[in-house]
Amino acid sequence: MTRQQLVEQIYKKKSYLCVGLDTDISKIPRHLLSEPDPVFTFNKAIIDATKDLCVSYKINTAFYEALGVKGWEAMERTVRYLGEEHFKIADAKRGDIGNTSDLYAKAFFETMPFDAITVAPYMGEDSVRPFLQHKNKWAIVLGLTSNKGANDFELKQMIVRQTTETTREEIKDSNEDAGYRIDEVTIDTNYVSFLYEQVLSTASKWGTTGNLMFVIGATQANEFTNIRKLTPDHFYLVPGVGAQGGSLKEISEKAMIKDCGILVNVSRAIIYASGKNDFAEKAREAAKAYQQEMNSYLK
Amino acid sequence: MTRQQLVEQIYKKKSYLCVGLDTDISKIPRHLLSEPDPVFTFNKAIIDATKDLCVSYKINTAFYEALGVKGWEAMERTVRYLGEEHFKIADAKRGDIGNTSDLYAKAFFETMPFDAITVAPYMGEDSVRPFLQHKNKWAIVLGLTSNKGANDFELKQMIVRQTTETTREEIKDSNEDAGYRIDEVTIDTNYVSFLYEQVLSTASKWGTTGNLMFVIGATQANEFTNIRKLTPDHFYLVPGVGAQGGSLKEISEKAMIKDCGILVNVSRAIIYASGKNDFAEKAREAAKAYQQEMNSYLK
Repeated sequence: MTRQQLVEQIYKKKSYLCVGLDTDISKIPRHLLSEPDPVFTFNKAIIDATKDLCVSYKINTAFYEALGVKGWEAMERTVRYLGEEHFKIADAKRGDIGNTSDLYAKAFFETMPFDAITVAPYMGEDSVRPFLQHKNKWAIVLGLTSNKGANDFELKQMIVRQTTETTREEIKDSNEDAGYRIDEVTIDTNYVSFLYEQVLSTASKWGTTGNLMFVIGATQANEFTNIRKLTPDHFYLVPGVGAQGGSLKEISEKAMIKDCGILVNVSRAIIYASGKNDFAEKAREAAKAYQQEMNSYLK
Repeated sequence: MTRQQLVEQIYKKKSYLCVGLDTDISKIPRHLLSEPDPVFTFNKAIIDATKDLCVSYKINTAFYEALGVKGWEAMERTVRYLGEEHFKIADAKRGDIGNTSDLYAKAFFETMPFDAITVAPYMGEDSVRPFLQHKNKWAIVLGLTSNKGANDFELKQMIVRQTTETTREEIKDSNEDAGYRIDEVTIDTNYVSFLYEQVLSTASKWGTTGNLMFVIGATQANEFTNIRKLTPDHFYLVPGVGAQGGSLKEISEKAMIKDCGILVNVSRAIIYASGKNDFAEKAREAAKAYQQEMNSYLK
């Protein structure tokens, strides 16, 4: 999916909601457990009940892998069921040396028809670049995450050396023999920034605003204004609204740009809105409330 | 597997070799493609040919996920075939918020019988800790990786603030009314270190030397002496020997400790030693050469 197609969906549906299919077999209504594929049956009901209210679905791969082969089958069935209208995110936090990331990209972009995958930046450029080589597919790089552990490294200060090279023209005295030249002047400046800021400014050069997004946790609202300055045109995938406590209003005010530029994910507060037979209906009500709030913020 | 059991295997086999099952269906001998499960058939032949020469097998999950459900099935069959004698590593580079990492741990430690999983540290403590809650299971945290991208963040300098709190006793003048007290003195010191050094020193406190290892790339030999100073007792999983060019001799000299403390992984140079019918025999020869060299370094 291209950025233009995603933005069209957002303004058509007046929604930048991503529904997180963190489907935990121990939390879905018990009457579904007698189905041959309870996870897919649950997902299908949630999707049917919410698809006109959201522009994206995010599949958290851990929940499927925990079930082994059956879980992987449920994930494949779910992403194929979603079709072309929604932006399909594999929340997989992958990333490895180049030849291995190539295969993760193949797994999620070719073997399965996801539009995007979340990627961990620790191993640097060659671990992320393979995800940027697939046409109309996206890498969503971890920037500043919503969890407490963000303080351990992401919010630690780094020293950044910026080298500015200035080429000056030849300077000549009126006496030609006395001429001298300064070809190049290099100025080194050291400054301090958070690791996550370095990740944003470095990783944003690896791709474009049309194939690279960042994960920015909704619980990090204090940093949103700064983050928008560093990456003024990138889309953000924003988890942490709902169960984790982030404010939809605050992040929308601070991070929204002229073509929206944010996808806000809600998982548990929608898919587990009810644990009974009415789970799909209640999920729709919860999604509808988010969509209506989003409609009031969309410019 | 406990550390003691792993070390016993190392001295019994005179080997600290880990064979990497990076099984790529496009690289295995063509005559295997007519088998119902070519990846497992290949792995089984490699395992049968090398099991007395190595103490560990490492399954790179990307190669299996690229094949979808069939690949996940081949991974499950392979790890179950390995049995109890070998240290079974899922090279999966996982890591997410706590409730999600919990499910990755379940996937690899309960649904499948791996002994260890590689974990990315970017998201901090709560993303790693769930992998340390399973008895006799290990988290192998990325420290300094073997790829070029290690320069992007891992080898960037950070500012570390160390706070030392000193409690002093009450100091009293001979005249009791003139008494004064200093309860606590806090001293802040700033120093500079690489990000990967911070990961080693911080993450080593999350677990023990009996449930946490680090990934240290063999191509980073210049840093090995420093790394051993920072983490004198931890085991390292060392990829990058073989196709990536790291020196087995150099890393063994610099990183080996009294109970060995290193597992050296070789993937392509063993499993693709031949692309023909004799692939298992040639894999054995390659593994044997590594084992014999390791025997000469083992103290």
